[in-house]
Amino acid sequence: MSTTNPNIAKGLEGIVFTESKLTFINGTEGILTHLGIPIQEWAEKSTFEELSFALLQARLPKADELAAFDAQLKANREIPGELLDIIAAYPKGIHPMQALRTAVSHLGLFDPQAEEITAEARYAIGVRMIAQFATIIAALGRTQEGKEPIAPRQDLTHAGNFLYMLNGTEPTPEQARLFDMALILHADHSMNASTFTAIATASTLSDMYSAITSAIGSLKGPLHGGANEAVMDMLDEIGTVENAVPYITAKLDNKEKIMGVGHRVYKFFDPRSRVLRDYAAKVAEQQGKSHYYQILETIEQAVVERLSSKGIYPNVDFYSGVVYSDLGIKKEYFTPIFALARISGWVASVNEYTANNRLLRPTAEYIGPVDQHYVDIQNR
Amino acid sequence: MSTTNPNIAKGLEGIVFTESKLTFINGTEGILTHLGIPIQEWAEKSTFEELSFALLQARLPKADELAAFDAQLKANREIPGELLDIIAAYPKGIHPMQALRTAVSHLGLFDPQAEEITAEARYAIGVRMIAQFATIIAALGRTQEGKEPIAPRQDLTHAGNFLYMLNGTEPTPEQARLFDMALILHADHSMNASTFTAIATASTLSDMYSAITSAIGSLKGPLHGGANEAVMDMLDEIGTVENAVPYITAKLDNKEKIMGVGHRVYKFFDPRSRVLRDYAAKVAEQQGKSHYYQILETIEQAVVERLSSKGIYPNVDFYSGVVYSDLGIKKEYFTPIFALARISGWVASVNEYTANNRLLRPTAEYIGPVDQHYVDIQNR
Repeated sequence: MSTTNPNIAKGLEGIVFTESKLTFINGTEGILTHLGIPIQEWAEKSTFEELSFALLQARLPKADELAAFDAQLKANREIPGELLDIIAAYPKGIHPMQALRTAVSHLGLFDPQAEEITAEARYAIGVRMIAQFATIIAALGRTQEGKEPIAPRQDLTHAGNFLYMLNGTEPTPEQARLFDMALILHADHSMNASTFTAIATASTLSDMYSAITSAIGSLKGPLHGGANEAVMDMLDEIGTVENAVPYITAKLDNKEKIMGVGHRVYKFFDPRSRVLRDYAAKVAEQQGKSHYYQILETIEQAVVERLSSKGIYPNVDFYSGVVYSDLGIKKEYFTPIFALARISGWVASVNEYTANNRLLRPTAEYIGPVDQHYVDIQNR
Repeated sequence: MSTTNPNIAKGLEGIVFTESKLTFINGTEGILTHLGIPIQEWAEKSTFEELSFALLQARLPKADELAAFDAQLKANREIPGELLDIIAAYPKGIHPMQALRTAVSHLGLFDPQAEEITAEARYAIGVRMIAQFATIIAALGRTQEGKEPIAPRQDLTHAGNFLYMLNGTEPTPEQARLFDMALILHADHSMNASTFTAIATASTLSDMYSAITSAIGSLKGPLHGGANEAVMDMLDEIGTVENAVPYITAKLDNKEKIMGVGHRVYKFFDPRSRVLRDYAAKVAEQQGKSHYYQILETIEQAVVERLSSKGIYPNVDFYSGVVYSDLGIKKEYFTPIFALARISGWVASVNEYTANNRLLRPTAEYIGPVDQHYVDIQNR
């Protein structure tokens, strides 16, 4: 296959196909904003619930609006009992993203509003999904280990309740806040591949369950959602704090890629990674530095010393993997956790696009044979 | 939202993002070819099994290769018994495409090869899916009506076996051949929206189940897969042969759209519609013209008289709806039948694209606020 045709927009890179009021990224300067507000401020001052409202409505909520939105999320934490049973009966050892994709698709079968293709229905379904993703992912995490799922609690935040449903113990306020922050940092990231796939599906005026199922399938790919799992694989390979610097030095000397370092977009420090690093350090000070955390700290120092002059820095995956692991989340569930955060960006982006919808249908250039005829099988 | 920015490639229309050796369309001249061979020849001389091989391998099979491929499809007609039970337990009255999306996603949970992300695994999974789609869709059709699913038979063609599994009676050879022809006509159509969505998902190097689940969700949308169902709605609205001409005349006089007439791509007779019309006429001569068929014939005449000078002709959906209905397929299942055919094009296109993969990630232009700061909630 020719790869030199200059008229082909490979990967659709640089092709602008829509406008958005939600998220802005300047990779060169390390800037990420939602509604023009820097991600650092969201992470430090806001909550995942508030950012979800802000992405869905393209504005900050007033106090009573946020309270109502939060109540709506809490009221929708339960999933149908039949679906819980189906999730519990999934074969063991499956890929959690195959399971999440299937469970979310199945959820649509229980929703009498699924086939209402209106802006109002998309919004209502989207809000329910934000709430229900936590319950589904926690149920998957537990049932795959043969444990009973735990019912959601109404008195905990979205982040705190998820950790409770997953681990069976209530997290400390600092742990819940650290996880809340991680969700904020992953909630939206402009036109990434999974958001684009959700939009592509929705552009046929298909339903929200179809759009989000597509997004989960896209996020699942190792070129998109799998990066922080790869960081943990690296930490496991390194094994001890003492091995960290020799491992990194050898990789750099051989010009090999280090997982969690560098980003296609950010050529400066990933703005999300700093704020997560700082709060993770605070929690680590309080609760003692975990084994993974100590390896991470050592690697970070070595990487920044060697690579920062080239504009290559640790990215958010570098820290989030250790944060998740220290919060009791197995690395196989890091990509579902990414989905737990990104669902807000997916829903908001689908709603924004479909408000001025246009069917997405680019073109493939035909380079095959011409003027052929069917040849009878005995004459081939 | 501004819609006047000239730099925005709306709907990605006209953007060429890849090359393909499979399918060529010239809408102005009414030409559709696979591997350079006109669709009419495929429909008249080939089978769905052979065209599926040809799309997957980008060449015609030799006799022994086709026999082996056919045997492989037959050997994979069964789906896991647990999945059959799960399908039978789906709530009644659900949208068949929500159900198909969920069942295919669930199928991945039973496939030990699902997480093998290689060209070989994609091919093997794709071939199994071509076979299993028939079994899943027939099982959905029956269980949604409270009937027992029917196990596949090894002695029937892909098309004949599907009709047998759906209706519980063996079709006549002519009926099986008519349905085979309809599958051939819908197997691939260049870069349509669902194929594009499958490619977008696969471009993250996600698995085949994720790619095809996305495609099903995309095909489900009324801007893509729902057209022949709309033709049947129109025929039901017309009700009698006597009403057909007055109905169409009134629509045309009011410049209203007639379902199944005209096509975004074809400005000449849709090449697929002629061949389907001719064979459908032959079967109708043998078995008696159905009520729907008589209405259709009357409409066709009126439409061609009034519109052909404008390059507007009946499209393939116009005929396939009546063909399917006369074969015992309910109109709610027309879009799943579309998927039953298009699965071959999806799998072939995903395999072709991922052989020279590039992550699909176009851009959204940011038009929201800048330089904002987080405002505490009591000050909003």
